[in-house]
Amino acid sequence: MSKSISIFDTTLRDGTQGEGISLSADDKVKIAKKLDALGVHYIEGGIPGSNSKDIEFFKRVQDLGLTSKVTAFGSTRRKGSIADQDANLLRILESGVSAATLVGKSWDFHVHTALQTTLEENLAMIYDSIAFLKRKGLEVIFDAEHFFDGFKNNPEYAVAVLSKAREAGADWLVMCDTNGGSLPHEISDIVTSLTGPLPGAPLGIHTHNDCELAVANTLSAVQAGVRHVQGTMNGYGERCGNANLCSIIPNLQLKLGYECIGDDNLRTLTNTARYISEIANVNMPVNQPYVGNAAFAHKGGIHVSAILRDSRTYEHIEPEKVGNKQRVLVSELAGQSNIVSKAQDMGLDFDPASEQSKHIIGKIKDLEHEGYQFEGADASLELLLREANGELKELFTFESFKMLVEKSAGQPVVSEAFVKVNVAGESIYTAAEGNGPVNALDNALRKALVQYFPTLKEMHLADYKVRVLDDKDATAAKVRVLIESKNFENAWNTVGVSSNVIEASWEALVDSMRYALLGQISPEQVHESAARQGLVNH
Amino acid sequence: MSKSISIFDTTLRDGTQGEGISLSADDKVKIAKKLDALGVHYIEGGIPGSNSKDIEFFKRVQDLGLTSKVTAFGSTRRKGSIADQDANLLRILESGVSAATLVGKSWDFHVHTALQTTLEENLAMIYDSIAFLKRKGLEVIFDAEHFFDGFKNNPEYAVAVLSKAREAGADWLVMCDTNGGSLPHEISDIVTSLTGPLPGAPLGIHTHNDCELAVANTLSAVQAGVRHVQGTMNGYGERCGNANLCSIIPNLQLKLGYECIGDDNLRTLTNTARYISEIANVNMPVNQPYVGNAAFAHKGGIHVSAILRDSRTYEHIEPEKVGNKQRVLVSELAGQSNIVSKAQDMGLDFDPASEQSKHIIGKIKDLEHEGYQFEGADASLELLLREANGELKELFTFESFKMLVEKSAGQPVVSEAFVKVNVAGESIYTAAEGNGPVNALDNALRKALVQYFPTLKEMHLADYKVRVLDDKDATAAKVRVLIESKNFENAWNTVGVSSNVIEASWEALVDSMRYALLGQISPEQVHESAARQGLVNH
Repeated sequence: MSKSISIFDTTLRDGTQGEGISLSADDKVKIAKKLDALGVHYIEGGIPGSNSKDIEFFKRVQDLGLTSKVTAFGSTRRKGSIADQDANLLRILESGVSAATLVGKSWDFHVHTALQTTLEENLAMIYDSIAFLKRKGLEVIFDAEHFFDGFKNNPEYAVAVLSKAREAGADWLVMCDTNGGSLPHEISDIVTSLTGPLPGAPLGIHTHNDCELAVANTLSAVQAGVRHVQGTMNGYGERCGNANLCSIIPNLQLKLGYECIGDDNLRTLTNTARYISEIANVNMPVNQPYVGNAAFAHKGGIHVSAILRDSRTYEHIEPEKVGNKQRVLVSELAGQSNIVSKAQDMGLDFDPASEQSKHIIGKIKDLEHEGYQFEGADASLELLLREANGELKELFTFESFKMLVEKSAGQPVVSEAFVKVNVAGESIYTAAEGNGPVNALDNALRKALVQYFPTLKEMHLADYKVRVLDDKDATAAKVRVLIESKNFENAWNTVGVSSNVIEASWEALVDSMRYALLGQISPEQVHESAARQGLVNH
Repeated sequence: MSKSISIFDTTLRDGTQGEGISLSADDKVKIAKKLDALGVHYIEGGIPGSNSKDIEFFKRVQDLGLTSKVTAFGSTRRKGSIADQDANLLRILESGVSAATLVGKSWDFHVHTALQTTLEENLAMIYDSIAFLKRKGLEVIFDAEHFFDGFKNNPEYAVAVLSKAREAGADWLVMCDTNGGSLPHEISDIVTSLTGPLPGAPLGIHTHNDCELAVANTLSAVQAGVRHVQGTMNGYGERCGNANLCSIIPNLQLKLGYECIGDDNLRTLTNTARYISEIANVNMPVNQPYVGNAAFAHKGGIHVSAILRDSRTYEHIEPEKVGNKQRVLVSELAGQSNIVSKAQDMGLDFDPASEQSKHIIGKIKDLEHEGYQFEGADASLELLLREANGELKELFTFESFKMLVEKSAGQPVVSEAFVKVNVAGESIYTAAEGNGPVNALDNALRKALVQYFPTLKEMHLADYKVRVLDDKDATAAKVRVLIESKNFENAWNTVGVSSNVIEASWEALVDSMRYALLGQISPEQVHESAARQGLVNH
């Protein structure tokens, strides 16, 4: 039996049914290009005519010269009507695609309850619609909605639906677990039972994640003989999402030896998944299998020391095969091996046996005890390590800040910050307003520094998190602030801890700017160098 | 064969290996109580002696009177040493638990590479350690690390490890898929093959989610005869997480007919999962199976009209069975019934058809759209409803506040608040310092009010949480503050939302005091009543 699997991506159609997912026509074009580069066989673009975004997408996608086949989605013709005159089917033709996905009912309960028609008319609707599009020269993928629930309730009818679709010429017969309620052994049993009534049929699978089993159900179907797999990137989709292609593809290709998108394309999977999460504007869960930022991250001290000996000890695949990479986190549970490996990553000469190293490891552990958490604050950790190594030159020093929040009844709240820092021996005192106290502090500090270090213009704060550490003391409890900063190329994370949320934020802000300035030269040095060269630079 | 499954929760141990998960001793105590109420059989609390939080937790948990067995985790004795003198094993004894989880190697590669000892010595380490704890009267759960990778590489040795553990008296032999790289059919085949060498052995399963298959792998093991399941709430854990008990328990109980925690406890699953995500301060993915906010949410128009005819059309179970609920994202019907039932709970005369009711329902929906969340803030919701019903008399009104945070290099940070409120026509302007800005505001507001309302002395703030709602705008993003307040008898929760963390805190603080004063009479009324009775009361 062939070991090639046809990969059908429905991120642009079923994926957009997910809560919080909304894609413009432009977003859809970007994602389609990226999916094409990944090498999926089908890209389901949307429902032609359902809205202006999909109409625009189908128009624009024709000029992209994609290798993947773009498909348009629609239902079988309405009951009691004629396929040739069905508005939905005509819209599929007008969209200019060469392949269509048609969805039809295969659960008798749904035929009665949702369609409110007879079992015979439903079969005719399926036959007519597929035959019509086939006559027009399209490839037709038939999605049998609720196939597994239908099979459990009335196996003869569910099989009759697939047979009818096959008879009409459908190129793929896709069994959908629409409600996501089936289990892997059920999928396996049902698919296997089809070899009798439907010998050699081109079967496909489409699952949902309501039992956290969509990936397993897909594998189960493939192992039972299915050769066409539908899913979405990052598992986007209605309710709990669709089957996640970012897990299915590596499982099929690396673990079971099926051919999906080739090894070279597989190495772009992480980048593709993250790109699409950016376009969809959805935070990717840090622990997402294969492609998540923590998928190959190690925290426990014992794990880390074993990983450093041989990465197979705690990694099921080489992360590079899916374009991801190993990361070593630092935490209170970790031994010193994490810190050593971190220092080595940074290119520091860091001998774990030296007194200096022991001192800094002790200091990091003390800070963690106070509530600092460096696993989410690589940049703050790097500053500590470079400082301990004597290679950090501070380009500014803190003198003072004041932060004032003021509100009167019926008036908007006002936040102002006053910041005094010293750069190259010069004391700078400046003030700024902001949308909230931390924003005001950020604005004031930036204002003070940017005249000396214009590169700070390029950075901005991308994420801000507050965690109350010990709520026993309620409003007097300690809080930890984590800040993510970005410029055009990089992102870095810093941390601050205090019982005062403003002070904790200030600490993380200052670290963020200190990190941005690593490797920059000081205004003093600029002056000195100019003086040496006989230039006047004032 | 028994259909009872022993559920072992390791949220407090393996769960804390997850990136971004950090729990204080206090957090751990809260989660342990909640897990006990859910009815899990084992709660793995941590590693005694590894850090001060775990030491404190094991001390405090002994006084809670939990029904679940609390277990302490540790490795088998060190190579070439004696179990009776092994520091880790002694710490488990000192922790006061009645059950221990001991982890040992079962992959020959790991014995050589990570432990750097012989296969024989590893077997002796396992035997000695288990036997030692059994002699001391503990129940021992043996976690065979990397069992499946070990079995694939050297089945005889992997089986020998389980046999040795059984011989030493282990109560459960738990097969771990530590690297998360195994597939369901492999798990099934391997577990089934053990019936020969280990007839009737008490087997357990512990999986990780690196292939997005942890839940499927667990089901596969149970279907092959395993009766002990290890996992974490919400699937927290290292890399891609541990097997998610929030999906496993309903799958086993509702789909496969196993007995785990009983039907009544299962109805508290959603609440438990969300509570734990709040304590861990991790946003629960909206699409999390069974317990996520979108798990039973319907967006598509066709789906919605079918759902309204019969919810089985697009729901694999009744959401109430896991304590979740159906949401129709386009409909206004969902929220209204909750508000009506809440008002009725409060004894308010609340006719959902009245204009007034429609107005307040609309207002609550608007507030939720702005980021308010009344699920965790009953007291704020009650104030809104009583206000709409015209039965709320305000005992004080807000005039203004100022909040100043000041810090100079080398000096401690200082927080001061200045609050002006009006009580019984009298304007009170007062100031207070605090340990942080919110504490200062709390102190100042309390100082202003307590002279008129001495019952405020009895209340205090018990919990303070900050959640950044939209991290795209970084420090200018909106934040939601939730405050829990307590007096001798009651606890109540209030909420504030603003892009300014100080303003959001102030809002929640003010609501907290307004709620505390419900049903109190005003100073004016005291005066009037005294005057009526001819008493002078000044």
